[in-house]
Amino acid sequence: MNLPLASHLQLAVCDYPEHVPQDRWADYARQQKALGLSYIRIAEFAWALMEPQEGQYEWAWLDQAIADIAAAGLRVVLCTPTATPPAWLTRTYPETMPYDHEGRVREFGSRRHYDFASPVYREHSRRITRQMAERYGNHEAVAGWQTDNEFGCHDTARSWGGASAAAFPGWLEARYGSVQALNEAWGNAFWSMDYQSFDQIRPPNLLITDVNPSHLLDFYRFASDNVKSFQEEQVAILRELSPGRFVTHNFMIFESGFDHYEVAKGLDFVSWDNYPTGMLEFFSGWGSEDLKTRYARTGHPDFISFQHDLYRGLLHKPIWVMEQQCGQVNWAPYNPLPADGAVQLWTAQAWAHGTDVVSYFRWRAATMAQEVMHSGLLRHDETPDRGHTEIQLLDLEQFPSGAVTAKVALLHDYESLWLYDVQKHAAGLSYWAQTVSYYAALRGLGQDVDIVHPDSDLSGYALIVAPALTLMIPERAAHLEEAAQHARVVFGPRSAYRTVSGRTPEDGQPGVLAGLLGSKLLNFDSLRPGLSVRVEGPDHACDVTTWAESYRLNPAAGNGAEAVYKYTGGPQQGQAAVVRHGNVTVIGAHSEELIRSVLAGELQAAGLQAELLPEGVRLSRRAGKTLVQNWNAQPVAYAGRTLAPVSFGVTND
Amino acid sequence: MNLPLASHLQLAVCDYPEHVPQDRWADYARQQKALGLSYIRIAEFAWALMEPQEGQYEWAWLDQAIADIAAAGLRVVLCTPTATPPAWLTRTYPETMPYDHEGRVREFGSRRHYDFASPVYREHSRRITRQMAERYGNHEAVAGWQTDNEFGCHDTARSWGGASAAAFPGWLEARYGSVQALNEAWGNAFWSMDYQSFDQIRPPNLLITDVNPSHLLDFYRFASDNVKSFQEEQVAILRELSPGRFVTHNFMIFESGFDHYEVAKGLDFVSWDNYPTGMLEFFSGWGSEDLKTRYARTGHPDFISFQHDLYRGLLHKPIWVMEQQCGQVNWAPYNPLPADGAVQLWTAQAWAHGTDVVSYFRWRAATMAQEVMHSGLLRHDETPDRGHTEIQLLDLEQFPSGAVTAKVALLHDYESLWLYDVQKHAAGLSYWAQTVSYYAALRGLGQDVDIVHPDSDLSGYALIVAPALTLMIPERAAHLEEAAQHARVVFGPRSAYRTVSGRTPEDGQPGVLAGLLGSKLLNFDSLRPGLSVRVEGPDHACDVTTWAESYRLNPAAGNGAEAVYKYTGGPQQGQAAVVRHGNVTVIGAHSEELIRSVLAGELQAAGLQAELLPEGVRLSRRAGKTLVQNWNAQPVAYAGRTLAPVSFGVTND
Amino acid sequence: MNLPLASHLQLAVCDYPEHVPQDRWADYARQQKALGLSYIRIAEFAWALMEPQEGQYEWAWLDQAIADIAAAGLRVVLCTPTATPPAWLTRTYPETMPYDHEGRVREFGSRRHYDFASPVYREHSRRITRQMAERYGNHEAVAGWQTDNEFGCHDTARSWGGASAAAFPGWLEARYGSVQALNEAWGNAFWSMDYQSFDQIRPPNLLITDVNPSHLLDFYRFASDNVKSFQEEQVAILRELSPGRFVTHNFMIFESGFDHYEVAKGLDFVSWDNYPTGMLEFFSGWGSEDLKTRYARTGHPDFISFQHDLYRGLLHKPIWVMEQQCGQVNWAPYNPLPADGAVQLWTAQAWAHGTDVVSYFRWRAATMAQEVMHSGLLRHDETPDRGHTEIQLLDLEQFPSGAVTAKVALLHDYESLWLYDVQKHAAGLSYWAQTVSYYAALRGLGQDVDIVHPDSDLSGYALIVAPALTLMIPERAAHLEEAAQHARVVFGPRSAYRTVSGRTPEDGQPGVLAGLLGSKLLNFDSLRPGLSVRVEGPDHACDVTTWAESYRLNPAAGNGAEAVYKYTGGPQQGQAAVVRHGNVTVIGAHSEELIRSVLAGELQAAGLQAELLPEGVRLSRRAGKTLVQNWNAQPVAYAGRTLAPVSFGVTND
Ligand SMILES: [Zn+2]
Ligand SMILES: [Zn+2]
Ligand SMILES: [Zn+2]
Repeated sequence: MNLPLASHLQLAVCDYPEHVPQDRWADYARQQKALGLSYIRIAEFAWALMEPQEGQYEWAWLDQAIADIAAAGLRVVLCTPTATPPAWLTRTYPETMPYDHEGRVREFGSRRHYDFASPVYREHSRRITRQMAERYGNHEAVAGWQTDNEFGCHDTARSWGGASAAAFPGWLEARYGSVQALNEAWGNAFWSMDYQSFDQIRPPNLLITDVNPSHLLDFYRFASDNVKSFQEEQVAILRELSPGRFVTHNFMIFESGFDHYEVAKGLDFVSWDNYPTGMLEFFSGWGSEDLKTRYARTGHPDFISFQHDLYRGLLHKPIWVMEQQCGQVNWAPYNPLPADGAVQLWTAQAWAHGTDVVSYFRWRAATMAQEVMHSGLLRHDETPDRGHTEIQLLDLEQFPSGAVTAKVALLHDYESLWLYDVQKHAAGLSYWAQTVSYYAALRGLGQDVDIVHPDSDLSGYALIVAPALTLMIPERAAHLEEAAQHARVVFGPRSAYRTVSGRTPEDGQPGVLAGLLGSKLLNFDSLRPGLSVRVEGPDHACDVTTWAESYRLNPAAGNGAEAVYKYTGGPQQGQAAVVRHGNVTVIGAHSEELIRSVLAGELQAAGLQAELLPEGVRLSRRAGKTLVQNWNAQPVAYAGRTLAPVSFGVTND
Repeated sequence: MNLPLASHLQLAVCDYPEHVPQDRWADYARQQKALGLSYIRIAEFAWALMEPQEGQYEWAWLDQAIADIAAAGLRVVLCTPTATPPAWLTRTYPETMPYDHEGRVREFGSRRHYDFASPVYREHSRRITRQMAERYGNHEAVAGWQTDNEFGCHDTARSWGGASAAAFPGWLEARYGSVQALNEAWGNAFWSMDYQSFDQIRPPNLLITDVNPSHLLDFYRFASDNVKSFQEEQVAILRELSPGRFVTHNFMIFESGFDHYEVAKGLDFVSWDNYPTGMLEFFSGWGSEDLKTRYARTGHPDFISFQHDLYRGLLHKPIWVMEQQCGQVNWAPYNPLPADGAVQLWTAQAWAHGTDVVSYFRWRAATMAQEVMHSGLLRHDETPDRGHTEIQLLDLEQFPSGAVTAKVALLHDYESLWLYDVQKHAAGLSYWAQTVSYYAALRGLGQDVDIVHPDSDLSGYALIVAPALTLMIPERAAHLEEAAQHARVVFGPRSAYRTVSGRTPEDGQPGVLAGLLGSKLLNFDSLRPGLSVRVEGPDHACDVTTWAESYRLNPAAGNGAEAVYKYTGGPQQGQAAVVRHGNVTVIGAHSEELIRSVLAGELQAAGLQAELLPEGVRLSRRAGKTLVQNWNAQPVAYAGRTLAPVSFGVTND
Repeated sequence: MNLPLASHLQLAVCDYPEHVPQDRWADYARQQKALGLSYIRIAEFAWALMEPQEGQYEWAWLDQAIADIAAAGLRVVLCTPTATPPAWLTRTYPETMPYDHEGRVREFGSRRHYDFASPVYREHSRRITRQMAERYGNHEAVAGWQTDNEFGCHDTARSWGGASAAAFPGWLEARYGSVQALNEAWGNAFWSMDYQSFDQIRPPNLLITDVNPSHLLDFYRFASDNVKSFQEEQVAILRELSPGRFVTHNFMIFESGFDHYEVAKGLDFVSWDNYPTGMLEFFSGWGSEDLKTRYARTGHPDFISFQHDLYRGLLHKPIWVMEQQCGQVNWAPYNPLPADGAVQLWTAQAWAHGTDVVSYFRWRAATMAQEVMHSGLLRHDETPDRGHTEIQLLDLEQFPSGAVTAKVALLHDYESLWLYDVQKHAAGLSYWAQTVSYYAALRGLGQDVDIVHPDSDLSGYALIVAPALTLMIPERAAHLEEAAQHARVVFGPRSAYRTVSGRTPEDGQPGVLAGLLGSKLLNFDSLRPGLSVRVEGPDHACDVTTWAESYRLNPAAGNGAEAVYKYTGGPQQGQAAVVRHGNVTVIGAHSEELIRSVLAGELQAAGLQAELLPEGVRLSRRAGKTLVQNWNAQPVAYAGRTLAPVSFGVTND
């Protein structure tokens, strides 16, 4: 990969030359250079212009666009345009169309209208990738590639009919060998759901009542595998024809339609698209309406940094923000203007969490189609918008390159997410909400956090937190037991509720994890709004909402399991709510206060310094520097000085 | 029927041997016997195991399961497995599939995926029933049969296409003879909806705007008839091949998809499935969020006993609870743990309302598929769960067999329900909500209540309450007039709003009931939340919400109709809100306070003793005993003693 | 048109002889005459009775119905019955069926089940119109015609498949000539949405994500054109065969499915259907729940008069209310009884806003089908209902004919509505809500208002208010500039955000309007509930919710643009929120207080007298009279006297 090693943060922008007259291109490039940008991402949705009719290619415009950018001293990130198949493709090959959960074909007219499993679409995907790579793969100005755009966005990772429905039985047969093995793995005896042959099996939609979670889990795995292999085909072509260039993909906020750990494999680094205000308004399953209002103009710091830390953890490498909000977005129910200083703060935060390049979306606000209400660095009238002004004032030297070295790991797994959310049992919780609760508690205690897969290398961490590892397998349990030798480990509720096929362990929860936890699940309690139970620990008590599970201590636990918190009152009166067993603690009750309190103790036990930060104040560390952030709209007193509203400072550690 | 007459309540459990390894079966049966159970219900969803391929039967496993149960001294309730057609059936005969209200096929993958009207499915239903009955019909251990499971559950009583759509015209032709008669009955002239031939008529879904209630009423009747005849076919085979065994069906909470009075005919007794916490969270159209929170861990006593009294009234016989919640359920938005004592309280209440056998759902919590989060008497790890412990402590001798002898009848009719709910006119009310309001008032006044069909024998009752008899026919009116000779009768709002075909009486409401009520409807008023009107009676006044109708006294009413309550203020100022005409009272306004007040007076007039019970305290009487119940989470002072939280006591009358 | 010029308001009623036995007809007509009615509207939904089988006509019943009405000295309004095609038509020609937005056929069984674009349906529409017109076109009793009924009601203006889908490409080809021109107009390069041929283009439904607003705009125009030409075919036949009779159509409350200005062309006058309580409960996107409760029994005065003024403005002529609520309706979630006096108040208000004939809906409450819960002047039992009594007491002489002469014009445009609402950007606002906010402010300041199309003659107005003219074209801008020479002009937010094809002006908003406004758009801010910003003006400050846009003054504005209000705090701190440029003011912030304050100043500047009326008090002027109205349920002191609850008085100006 010929990507130059930069000494500090670099900036970039997403541009769409095809949206403006050609006579603006050279001028735009010069302005972009003058603003201090290094890269321009282009060609993301331009298939119809590259290939206006099947097999007829038109490259002149793109040759010119790249030339203009190169002439200004900028480098290009090219995208494979497969997120937007042209009308001729969709109409000629309707078998490439995806189906929605309601069983309907999803129509041409916006974007992402294809089924990852379609062999016909795969062929077109490979063809256009090859054409682009042949023409531009060795172009000097081309720094690297983005595959497609935002896999899974708009609920497109899964197609519930068509090509996916046709391919699903074969995938199952490859996994299970015999339909008897599948019936056993899925527990199909339950409601006489046994299959007699693989070709009887369809995607699990349009059912009369609840879905078998095992059926769903395998359909989600199948869909995830399709995303993975779809991208692998493009990556292979780019490796062949564009040597020395990086290949990345721009992942989306809280996208849950595929296993990002699998799909990221084979990329040079991971990118993601960071829209802090829309994220809070649209994706949030965590936080109250009041919190949404409080952080409406900045987004919530932990919500954003959660993504940075998650994507940095996919390949354990620095990342890019491939699309960075720099003004209002257009796709949430409400789309406020960012606060003064927010674009600078987002950029600084991105750096501190391991971002090497921040690429703003987009250069000039679009004057046509779906996103005319979305902002760019330039307004529709080409005057610099608020974000442009903020970027211009930014000193990039203060953001040196280097490593983020967290001592705390938070474990995350997409299969656990799928199993958790298909059977929430308490409507007010979800996998993401529970996971973010633990993450936010750690951030509020001043910690840097790596979000990593449970099966990854966990050495080097002093504290390992597993908020919602619903799916447990023996190998994973062994790996965690090994990790607990040298680190403190904390589990959240619903740990190890499910086996690899989505069933419950025959010996009850937490199955293979029982030895490590020194306890077994007794009961779980789902609390409607208004209903709470109380827990009491050594030095404090608090109320628990939404979820409360209890444990029976394992008498066989050699070094002594201990009920640290117990329920007082309610059906689980006197039962253990938090159990400590050596280095390992399991928290069974949902309470932000309880989580913070237990984690503060565990940090201390792990030899890490914990500090309860003021609301909206956050610390992030990278390359020997600490980024002190104030996300509040008001000034805040912190560490002997006053932090201005929506601001940051960089200090040496 | 060779069912032994027991001197007191018997217990049972639902078990699924096919969900666990065969080596557990004998052991489970011994444990079940040791717990004091008498019956084990099995084979409910096991079609695919009995007949893995069309026409290939495998009985060995079921032979063994029954043998193990019999060997432990227990008796078996067998189910026809038609709630879960196997995959081979659905895929080979797709014409058996049901259609949803949106016009889509409802897919294989959960349960109840069949259309009651399908002649092909009927053939399979008869065949598997015959096979089972031939093999086990005379087995000594087999006490009786359950048909299918929970008819109508998951909105499956009606199929809006396919076989049902094909059969509907023929049903209509049989009912009306000529399309002219149908057009007149339905009032099709209204919007030029006249049909020229029966084959033009479809189920009333996917319409542009509101449905003709007459069209809907007949489609619902048609669907109900299909459920009835579907079951009759099974019952006939069981009668033939399994003499001396009972046949029952397990009906569902608040299921409204068919006429239970019709479908219960031909059964030996009625069963139902009692899930108190899920019922309150999921099915409730009555009661505030606060009430749901208050009773989250027990369910609401009146909500539960309403079902007991309703199902006991179908055949005027003691009933079974075929599935009794004994821990958390899994299918409501929130699924709390039951309070300590709740399982005992539910069991005692069931007995007091006429239940002879309570069968807990289920033995061991399922380790697979849709219901892994649902509890059983054993946990996943086979340890006894909370419900098991409560049952073990229960003294069954305190629950003697015998009759429930209520002096108050509450009239209920499914056709009235259908007509009411298709045109609610005030979004906050429904047939069930209005009906339960009257029922709960009676229970809060300490009354035992029979819920019976308006056309049934009403002699023997001192007070007859008809909360929402929307549909009135001359024969029914005459029957009620006769009943009013010897009893007090109270009607609620919307009485006799509709004729047999769903039209309005040509002489206005209440049509043929005008003589009995001594009044005619003047106006009805629909009150949005926040809007109320006031009524004033002889000794008190109160606010009315949601619904307020007024009456014009009939000058022809010989013995003098009287406006007992009048509206004060609002558009109906000065008009009668409650009219008394001899023994008969009609309440036109919706107010829990007003209903309670009027009913208290009527109880007194009927010579019945009324007592205003404390919140959450209830009395139920059977066989010379009174069950005093405290449903509160707190102790309550009552009748000179303190009732413990969630508890009961049995006293002699 | 042989419509007699009446000296004062006339009354009428909608009747459906086919809903009652023939022996009631003559009697009803005599009663109608006795009540003081002049016209009876009939035959609206009677196609199946006129033509029971294709080509077989039965006129005897209608001959008789008309004869009975004529014999009583009343005149008839006949309707073409095309809102309800008979079953034989729908079943024989299923290609006439409409499709819903979800892609499903909308079924027979209620009304409006046809696709305006269907050539087959057009043929039947012309045929039945011709048949009726030939038979009754010259009948002496026939005063005029209503085409169809309530075009667009129940979301029927647009069909998303079938005949409409087939016709859409041809309409586009006629508009754009080449697919390249369409691609450019729609900005299809945006997401590779370019079409290669017209036949690839479908209605914009079932998309994966947001629709291209240009695609939507043209589909809406296409649908609107179909409504227009559908009616024109009927009108042409009626003109030919029924000379001297009027032709009108009864439009619906807040119907947005077609361009009413276009569809009204060619009618003699405009009618509309006025349901004040249902309108407030069901259609309102403006006003809080508290306001809905406060006005539940009368509807909101401004909501109703908005419709009067809108429909009067379609042809700049007096109108009819073709259906006037006279008791409860049946189609809203809640359907309260109107307050005492409401029917009189609605009638008086209708007159004062330019209505010449008020036709109550309906004579006798229907005893069958969808609307049995709806009121009429007679109850089901034929006794006079509350509305009947009110009408009987009404002195029509106090309502003289004559002109409404408003000095204030409010500009309204359906294309702006479509573009605004497809990209609301702030979920709490809409085109109607924003427009009604300005209208209500003017009414609360005592103004009479003409609602007119922006391209219509604007001379004669002293103040012109354009609340939400989203779509701007050069000709319109020039017309408004001319109008600003002799009048004060006020624009609201989002003015001129879009060009004729739905794109954004290449030189930014407000494009061609920049000269007139003396400013350009800087930013717009979308405020979630709970988030507000503050504006400060010369003499007062207030909070702004939901929407806040700011401007850059145009230095080229010769006579000096001035920031009248500025934002204080928030991201637009210090920027202009209201700009005045000569006669022209633009208000960028949404605040009822701000709007009222600015408009009060503009009225004064325009030489008009403004008076801040008490809540619920309204003034309306016609023919030298002023109608003073109290819409409150309480008495109100006004102008030295006490206005009774829900009452009016007529005074000389
Ligand atoms: Zn993007
Ligand atoms: Zn069940
Ligand atoms: Zn109408």
